[in-house]
Amino acid sequence: MRTSIATVCLSGTLEEKLQAAATAGFDGVEIFEQDLIVSPNSPESIAALAAELGLSLDLYQPFRDFEGVDDEQFAANLARAEAKFQLMKRMGMTTILLCSNVATATIDDDEVVVDQLRRLGDLAEKYDVDVAYEALAWGRFVSEYDRAWDLVKAADHPRIGTCLDSFHILSRGTDLSRIAEIPGEKIFFLQLADAPALSMDVLSWSRHHRVFPGEGAWDLTDFLTRVAETGYAGPVSLEVFNDSFRQADTRRTAVDGLRSLRWLEANLTAARTGSDPVRLDLQPLPHVSEPRGIDYVELSTDALGTLTRQIHQLGFRFVGFHRTKPHVQLWRRGQARIVVTETTEPGVESAGPAVDSAESGDPSVEPASPAADFAESGTHLRGIGFAVDEADAAMERALLLSATEVPRDQAHDEEVLRGVFAPDGSEVFFANGTGEDPQWTDEFGNVPDDRQSAIDHINLAQPAHHYDEAVLFYTSLLALTALPSQDVPSPTGLVRSQVMSSVDGAVRMPLNVSPDHSTNALSRGAGSSGETYPEHVAIACDDIFTAATTAVARGLKFLAVPQNYYEDLAARFDLAPELLDRLREHNILYDRDDSGEFLHFYTSTIGSVFFEMVERRTGYHGFGAPNAPVRLAAQHRRNKES
Amino acid sequence: MRTSIATVCLSGTLEEKLQAAATAGFDGVEIFEQDLIVSPNSPESIAALAAELGLSLDLYQPFRDFEGVDDEQFAANLARAEAKFQLMKRMGMTTILLCSNVATATIDDDEVVVDQLRRLGDLAEKYDVDVAYEALAWGRFVSEYDRAWDLVKAADHPRIGTCLDSFHILSRGTDLSRIAEIPGEKIFFLQLADAPALSMDVLSWSRHHRVFPGEGAWDLTDFLTRVAETGYAGPVSLEVFNDSFRQADTRRTAVDGLRSLRWLEANLTAARTGSDPVRLDLQPLPHVSEPRGIDYVELSTDALGTLTRQIHQLGFRFVGFHRTKPHVQLWRRGQARIVVTETTEPGVESAGPAVDSAESGDPSVEPASPAADFAESGTHLRGIGFAVDEADAAMERALLLSATEVPRDQAHDEEVLRGVFAPDGSEVFFANGTGEDPQWTDEFGNVPDDRQSAIDHINLAQPAHHYDEAVLFYTSLLALTALPSQDVPSPTGLVRSQVMSSVDGAVRMPLNVSPDHSTNALSRGAGSSGETYPEHVAIACDDIFTAATTAVARGLKFLAVPQNYYEDLAARFDLAPELLDRLREHNILYDRDDSGEFLHFYTSTIGSVFFEMVERRTGYHGFGAPNAPVRLAAQHRRNKES
Repeated sequence: MRTSIATVCLSGTLEEKLQAAATAGFDGVEIFEQDLIVSPNSPESIAALAAELGLSLDLYQPFRDFEGVDDEQFAANLARAEAKFQLMKRMGMTTILLCSNVATATIDDDEVVVDQLRRLGDLAEKYDVDVAYEALAWGRFVSEYDRAWDLVKAADHPRIGTCLDSFHILSRGTDLSRIAEIPGEKIFFLQLADAPALSMDVLSWSRHHRVFPGEGAWDLTDFLTRVAETGYAGPVSLEVFNDSFRQADTRRTAVDGLRSLRWLEANLTAARTGSDPVRLDLQPLPHVSEPRGIDYVELSTDALGTLTRQIHQLGFRFVGFHRTKPHVQLWRRGQARIVVTETTEPGVESAGPAVDSAESGDPSVEPASPAADFAESGTHLRGIGFAVDEADAAMERALLLSATEVPRDQAHDEEVLRGVFAPDGSEVFFANGTGEDPQWTDEFGNVPDDRQSAIDHINLAQPAHHYDEAVLFYTSLLALTALPSQDVPSPTGLVRSQVMSSVDGAVRMPLNVSPDHSTNALSRGAGSSGETYPEHVAIACDDIFTAATTAVARGLKFLAVPQNYYEDLAARFDLAPELLDRLREHNILYDRDDSGEFLHFYTSTIGSVFFEMVERRTGYHGFGAPNAPVRLAAQHRRNKES
Repeated sequence: MRTSIATVCLSGTLEEKLQAAATAGFDGVEIFEQDLIVSPNSPESIAALAAELGLSLDLYQPFRDFEGVDDEQFAANLARAEAKFQLMKRMGMTTILLCSNVATATIDDDEVVVDQLRRLGDLAEKYDVDVAYEALAWGRFVSEYDRAWDLVKAADHPRIGTCLDSFHILSRGTDLSRIAEIPGEKIFFLQLADAPALSMDVLSWSRHHRVFPGEGAWDLTDFLTRVAETGYAGPVSLEVFNDSFRQADTRRTAVDGLRSLRWLEANLTAARTGSDPVRLDLQPLPHVSEPRGIDYVELSTDALGTLTRQIHQLGFRFVGFHRTKPHVQLWRRGQARIVVTETTEPGVESAGPAVDSAESGDPSVEPASPAADFAESGTHLRGIGFAVDEADAAMERALLLSATEVPRDQAHDEEVLRGVFAPDGSEVFFANGTGEDPQWTDEFGNVPDDRQSAIDHINLAQPAHHYDEAVLFYTSLLALTALPSQDVPSPTGLVRSQVMSSVDGAVRMPLNVSPDHSTNALSRGAGSSGETYPEHVAIACDDIFTAATTAVARGLKFLAVPQNYYEDLAARFDLAPELLDRLREHNILYDRDDSGEFLHFYTSTIGSVFFEMVERRTGYHGFGAPNAPVRLAAQHRRNKES
């Protein structure tokens, strides 16, 4: 499948955009006119740069407000078009996007429009240009793809075809069945964008909130399948206007965009039943099913005693040190496993060995990775191990989806776990899930533990401007599903929260973006105000009161819950006074939904990490969202005190 | 007029919110339940704090999902209400907000609702509580204020009244005439919010985009007048959910809120025709008309030679040094005046005299002002002098609107200019406008200059989260009008731009918020990415080519305009080739609207300031917005180069 991206998707200068598109691996680009106009480089030199980078220039866009006008205006528009055709010739470009008229159209008459399109086609013929006519969702008279197609069909001109743009079609909820009527060769271009389900005017929605396929609410696989089955053989191109993407790192956005197309391509391959001819030359990806569960979470710390004491207070048992990595240890509570890596243990992480490796040219010592910086001090969530059906296939898929591999030393007799960096800088490892204790735990020794306990969910802080990228990352690499997003009020603003989950709930990861967001992907947990929005690991248990009693006995510092909360709880729910007393006594929070109950408590925060202990009763689905403001306020007060 | 504010408007903890409301000068607050629930302090101690701060606790809110339910649910709801009434009693509170049911209502039957309201009233009577029933715009069955009033009227219970909330009413565009039917004493509470004109679902609009009166698109003066004329005598309270306010400095937001009410109160006083009785005890403010023009702009600089050379290149004439302040000089071009203050001239701004004043206890030496920091280095736009009808009245009004006065030394025989700090830290001075050269210019000596030239507009960079505050500031202090906002694409994101203007166009100030915004009100011109979004002063002239020729002769560094721009210009407009050549030759940009033409060029940037020279032909209204991306891209490239 030929991939392309409109330069307007990316931040920076036109030259930076071309570089980023090429580096990410796109086959071509759409030149957004404004990007060219503001460039000090000539059209010829831009074309030369693209050629040098191996990028085709697939589309010149947009050409606006052409058809449905009176004769005088039409003559001026034709002159304007000719100037653009001349410009395209200088760049060796052969396809232009014609948007349906939004501003100057005065004549809503098919005959007039068809005639004007034909005359444009005649002019285009002289310059060897194809015109792809697209219905903008807010077009004055032409706003539906099938009306645009009817006009193109009536024009019956070899230089006049249509452009299908998923945004303009799906945002209006138009019936898609007429796509099948369009011969593939009359679709001159295809633009894809996804979008979140918002209820707002379609122009604002389009200009600010488009996202890449897989990051929104629409079924782009179905849309692309319909277009592919017409026999369309041209580029599949991204055209996304997004306020965050405009500010984000150009190269990362480009990688994110290409990932969305590779993912879509793989979906399409999988969805194909094989009856209709498809000319898109689809490349499959190794298949992954959703993970069986979370194998382990890895925390790195320079406060080993403090952290492991808290883990112990939560009822974890010490399993052992890694047999060859003395600064790595394993703790478990039933199927909940926490790997703790000490970052500052003297004599282990000292500069000595690292310099040795570098000098010896050891290929296992990779250049500094994006995650290396933040792991060096403090206590952080470093990574997550996912139990998957086939770890090798998952890793291969991840690399084909442009993820960056985590460099990691491996002794040759050890279980080789491979992983990649997530958009937030954390590490994602793939472990073969067997349903029993994973093999790699042998490296720490064996401590049997058949308690009913597991990692319930992991709450990750996301850097601003890479939120949508994270959704696609977990969707495309791990087959997780994005649940609808929520806003949670905190004393310093709304926290946007979206849960990535496996369908069976074995993996649940709420992704949070703090309101006062940092643009640095690596400063996880810290907003630019200095306010920290820490990450947390939630442990499921089958008796929260026993867990709390153990924790109290071991001296756990609970996050204190205000008395006012319990008074409100009493007003909201018809709880037995004894239960209420027990909740209050142990700083346990409570929630209820249609299926069941949720009881949970929080620890204090170490570095940027804290823990939650949860008990789900009879199928409660949520995460205690009504209680999140209580936690955020308590953490805010602690921050201010410290 | 008694003023109140809901704690949900403000960021921080409940205690911080109360402090901020009291410091700003509010008479009371609405306690937003969630703020109380998350507080570790008891209801009694919160009430004691409020009393100590002189704040009345005007409303407990919200109580949700009460009416229109079956008997079983109703019993539970009544028990829930009683718990809240008990809580209110502990706090000495006597009014609760009851929102129309959005979630649990199943019975859309007036009789049932009326009966349930009455029974709630009976319960409220026991606790001496008044219930203010409000129609939420997205209520399940009750969503219009007049329906809520009909129900309250039918309930006919002394403890059941209505609450009017401008958001819920104006967002639905409901006919306001029935407000007059409601006796003032049955309006138990009044909440005000303004909002920008957005086309989105009313719930999202309400939860994220409310602003204070005067910061949005609605006529709150009319709304408040209608309510006042019912005889309503209770508090006028702000209830604003706004994503920015939730993140902004609590104290500033509170001041901004009180300003909005004082402004509204003054509008109401002015709008009153005096026939109907009004019991709100309105306090007027000194009246201001819109400014006659911009008297001067003041730049502070540590690069005097570089800055004044550029000013000279733009055709300004040197007028003189200030007769007593040797580090201050005046330049003029017709009626465009630039005061240049050197911040680092040796022997003048040295520590010596400042220490002397401090030691002598000189009262004119005020504590460090918010603007003092940024004025100390670099080149900045320090302030603007506005020519107003009555400077004393304007200053008095500004202070009554909680603006902070700029401390300034004055020799006793000099014209006393007084001013206040704008939300962005710049200084706003009020000068008596006479239509002739202002009197204060005598202090610099006199250089006659009858050229047709003036300050056309001043483009100010605004700190994030204080954008709405700025709109209200210029509206309420200077009687400027906010034009609709626009988004301008830059290489690093969209720049939100809104013009504050006098009706006659004599004062025009585009306010810009850069996409990668800084939260520091004082770091004007710099986004957190290090990308600078400088401010600029635009000078109007009557012949741009002459101005450009002079500038070239004097060696001005123009901001370079790409050739691609001129090629596009030729395609867009039918311009004479000679004109196009002249534009290109002088790096002049061009735009056209229905009324006329706009020709303009830009200088390079010094510190955080650059200049624009503009010629408006035959009544062009805009600011060359289509050309802004060209400028932003050129400045972005220069930033990256330097």
